[in-house]
Order: sequence, then C-alpha cells, then structure tokens
Amino acid sequence: MNVYSPTVRILGIDPGSRFTGFGIIDVNGQKNRHVHSGCLRIPLKGEFSDRLKSIYDGISELVQQYQPCEIAIEKVFMNKNADSALKLGQARGAAIVAAMQVTHELYEYSPNRIKQAIVGRGHADKTQVRHMIKMLLLLSKIPQEDEADALAVALCHAHSRHTQRLMKDLA
Amino acid sequence: MNVYSPTVRILGIDPGSRFTGFGIIDVNGQKNRHVHSGCLRIPLKGEFSDRLKSIYDGISELVQQYQPCEIAIEKVFMNKNADSALKLGQARGAAIVAAMQVTHELYEYSPNRIKQAIVGRGHADKTQVRHMIKMLLLLSKIPQEDEADALAVALCHAHSRHTQRLMKDLA
Repeated sequence: MNVYSPTVRILGIDPGSRFTGFGIIDVNGQKNRHVHSGCLRIPLKGEFSDRLKSIYDGISELVQQYQPCEIAIEKVFMNKNADSALKLGQARGAAIVAAMQVTHELYEYSPNRIKQAIVGRGHADKTQVRHMIKMLLLLSKIPQEDEADALAVALCHAHSRHTQRLMKDLA
Repeated sequence: MNVYSPTVRILGIDPGSRFTGFGIIDVNGQKNRHVHSGCLRIPLKGEFSDRLKSIYDGISELVQQYQPCEIAIEKVFMNKNADSALKLGQARGAAIVAAMQVTHELYEYSPNRIKQAIVGRGHADKTQVRHMIKMLLLLSKIPQEDEADALAVALCHAHSRHTQRLMKDLA
C-alpha cells in the first residue's frame, strides 16, 4: 500500500524570561529531520516589556522564516512561587501569540510525557535527554539545555501527533 | 508664556484571561478626554492558546485603529497561587506584545498609586473608583469594572507621565 505522507514541520518552544529555546524539525512518517534550533538570549537590562518584545520578535522572525505547521510546548506545573509563575506566564504568552501568527495548531505535553517519548521513561535526567536528542536527530554536538528542551517537545509531538490530532478532531 | 502642549493618546489595559479591560484617553496639558473604552470578553471554550490569541487580536485591532503613544498597565503583586499567576501572566504577555506593536512607551503603576491618583487615597474601594472615573471623564454612565480599571490606570498615567518620562530619560 502506498500511502502519501506529507512532511510536517514542527516548532518546539521552551519559553523563559531569560532564555527561550526553540527547535524546528521536519517529520515524514517515522523519519524526523533536524532543521534548525537554538536559544534566544533575552537581554536582562531594560524594561520587562522590552524583554517580552524580544521573545515576541524572536519567535515571529522564526515562524515567518520557517513556517511551521504545528507548535509544541511543554505544559507547566507551577510549584514555584507566584512571582516566578507570573514572569514565566508573560514569556509564554508572548511566545505563544508570536507562534500563532502562522498556525493555530498548538499542542502541550507534560515534562514526564516528553521524557517518556525521548528516553523511554518519565524520570530521565536532563543529560540523558540531551544525549538522546543528539542521537535521534543526528546532530554533530549535544545541544544546549533550552535548545534541547525545545527539540524534545517537538520530537515528542512528532511521535504522538496522530493521536493528538485525532483527539482534537473528535473533541 | 505660550508653551505648545501636544495631545498624547494613552491606552490603559487591565489584562485578564477572562476579561481584558481597555480605556483610551487623550491628554492635553491638564485636560483629559475619553476616547473609547470597553472590555474584551475572552471566550471560555476552546484551547487556552486560542484565548491568548483573542486577547492579542483584540488589543492589536485597538492599537492599529487608535494608535496610542503610551501604554499604562497595572503592576501585579501576586498573592494568589502560582497557577493563577501563570494564567494572568500569559494574558499580560499577550496583551503587552500586542500593544507594543505601535509604541515602546509602557508604564506600570501599583494598585495603590492608581487609587491615589483617581480618588485621592490608596485604599479606596472599586465603587468609588468607578464613580470618580465617570465624573473625571464626563461619561454618561458608570463604566464596568474591567473597563473602569483600564481607564483608571490610563488616567493615573496621564497625571504622572511627566515625572515618569523624566525618570525614564534619566535612567
């Protein structure tokens, strides 16, 4: 049987008010190809609103250039204090609306689900995740932490996108 | 002495993940004129990302149409739980980057400072604030809560913008 399987471009984002990681992969059937990844370093000086604008502009530039079809982002469970939650929330809000300029397909995954998808178990440590990302995407070196987290959520989405999409359609 | 005093348009925003109030005033010297105000009702159904997009689109439309020069927003002190802080943060992030499409002049004021500016004391209740907003801007009726909060922060900024701008220039 010859089933046509189009390439889907996924952008994974790991938003933060100091560093925002991003990872873009192309998925075709079972094959995942690394396209681009890195980390936006948000300048610490200046007003907080200028920092949100940096995140927004950085992600806007990426989505305009790479035109992802689907966005994947880590679900946040806040156990920190309310002040950190507010800061992270603002960064997430800015990143999400920037990404949604090109697509409304946004999916969230819990940290355990992401680790499960990459390493095979929910309680893997960060070093293992980074190592696996390098292997799975045939990278020349181990990616930085925020970059790896963004690629990890993109890969997690690549693995489970069929089920997710089906559930979204049925909802 | 004849000092030229240009009209400055201020947008006040009271962001929230369910209701986002907005208030636009024109300031010329000591005179404040009400231009437009209201409340974006964010649809509760749908994904959280679609709700952030609604806030972003709503504020984008307003700033494109009314072209404010300066933005005023209430400073948040989170005493609620981290989960509420995250939600509010996301709404704020989306609203702020939308507003910053037209201007980088964004100012924050604490709730007490806003009440002080409108009612004359920092611990006034919401009803008093709404009543004073109606009087100060010669509105035909008392504005709704989120709309009043947005107009209040815009008016607070109108009162203190000279000092604020001076401090920003000196920083």
